[in-house]
Amino acid sequence: MLKPGESIHAPIGIFDTGLGGLTALKEIRTILPHERLIYFGDTGRVPYGSRSHEVICKYAAQDMRFLLSRAACKAIVIACGTVSANALPQLQDTFSVPFFGVIDPAAKRAAACTKNKKIGVIATASTIASGAYERALQQIDATLSICSRACPLFVPLVENGFIGTEDPIPRLTAERYLVDIRASGCDTLILGCTHYPILAPVIAQVLPNVTLIDSGYEVAHALRKQLEIDHLLAPPDTCGETSYFVSDEPHGFAAEAARFLKLAEDENFAVPNVCRINIEDF
Amino acid sequence: MLKPGESIHAPIGIFDTGLGGLTALKEIRTILPHERLIYFGDTGRVPYGSRSHEVICKYAAQDMRFLLSRAACKAIVIACGTVSANALPQLQDTFSVPFFGVIDPAAKRAAACTKNKKIGVIATASTIASGAYERALQQIDATLSICSRACPLFVPLVENGFIGTEDPIPRLTAERYLVDIRASGCDTLILGCTHYPILAPVIAQVLPNVTLIDSGYEVAHALRKQLEIDHLLAPPDTCGETSYFVSDEPHGFAAEAARFLKLAEDENFAVPNVCRINIEDF
Repeated sequence: MLKPGESIHAPIGIFDTGLGGLTALKEIRTILPHERLIYFGDTGRVPYGSRSHEVICKYAAQDMRFLLSRAACKAIVIACGTVSANALPQLQDTFSVPFFGVIDPAAKRAAACTKNKKIGVIATASTIASGAYERALQQIDATLSICSRACPLFVPLVENGFIGTEDPIPRLTAERYLVDIRASGCDTLILGCTHYPILAPVIAQVLPNVTLIDSGYEVAHALRKQLEIDHLLAPPDTCGETSYFVSDEPHGFAAEAARFLKLAEDENFAVPNVCRINIEDF
Repeated sequence: MLKPGESIHAPIGIFDTGLGGLTALKEIRTILPHERLIYFGDTGRVPYGSRSHEVICKYAAQDMRFLLSRAACKAIVIACGTVSANALPQLQDTFSVPFFGVIDPAAKRAAACTKNKKIGVIATASTIASGAYERALQQIDATLSICSRACPLFVPLVENGFIGTEDPIPRLTAERYLVDIRASGCDTLILGCTHYPILAPVIAQVLPNVTLIDSGYEVAHALRKQLEIDHLLAPPDTCGETSYFVSDEPHGFAAEAARFLKLAEDENFAVPNVCRINIEDF
């Protein structure tokens, strides 16, 4: 007998601080087209990456409670590197719903990809300070050599549209941040923040022979695999849909989402209705 | 008879989202050395500049309530362009304490400085969207020509230390944002966000013949003038002191404050104790 939420018809909750999680959402929509999704972007408190461990844990618990207040989700995807790196143990203590952070899926893929056993990790300041990626990688293979670097300006660059490969501002920023990563000789780089795939073309210019691991993409595939194992996939005759919630002005989010992820070009990814909620109530 | 808070011995409250307000605090400490100051930086929810009008008003009221919970302040300085531009009418309806926003003092100084009647305004997205500086300037002199530009990456650049005049990243960003300001031919530019004075040397490189108006500096002088008029200056035999409060990890704030404002070089500006509070309780 299924427990509450453990129903093939139950939705999947996804949260991030804002735009970054949409890189995971888009992949989930592609590979799990029949699922109902509830997305929450904490746009009223973005960014998390420069905040303290304690504040991140508090915000993450509120985000989880909001999603679970909407529906008995069968799984929750933490589509945020900062929350995944900082809050997973606390969330595990508090919530019984199955949830998926980005750290382990990205670490597994990177360990499988690398040929020279040298892996780079870039993420927000708090993710790098947590050491979560390093621990996950060392648990998979203690002989891996890991070079990490916080790139705190990458999220503001993405949020403000400084993302073009011809634009010297993101390119110079990437060159500066990635000096040690390049010098490390790694052949694989984890984009440890879900905003960073939007800068992947710029990062690839600076590190042309390095395989880039998209943590949002990897968590989407880890989710599908687990739902398959648990026989919790939505029936193929159901039509997937996504509900969007944010904690600040919804119109801006819809427009930015459409712009960054080209959602408007594909009807399935259209953002028709974004509701605003008061996250501090949760 | 003085009302509560209207005492020469009462402290002055100052708030901002984080580091920016320290540019005003530093000037207040210099010109009002005998005052007791209570500074609150809402580092747990910075930045405000990209948030909606409604969220900014809500956060600003909480910031005010926190300061007034500490002491019956004789005045409150809103050392944040975004709050000054968005929340002043609502705060005036709610609070009876005298308070000072940065808009009017900066607008008055700019109108007094300009010779060619052309004034530029740069600030956060929400400040520019509010039209507050334009309204204040037009009320002073309806014949002024005003060119405004939001510079949303300036706050993250400052917060992440990209502030050097030899650094191409802030310089290229300033050049891009200031194209229209330069083309407008203005001889005076309002730095409408209290973070921006930290980038003033970079902005001056791009606009070498333009007078830069520091809104934090101007509000400090407006405060002193009003306290003089109201006979509310602290007695010259009292020793000024500053209490610092933030809504996220206090150690980082103290270090960043010392770094950006060279507080450590002057004992009077040392940041000995920074207390953390939960702003959502107010």
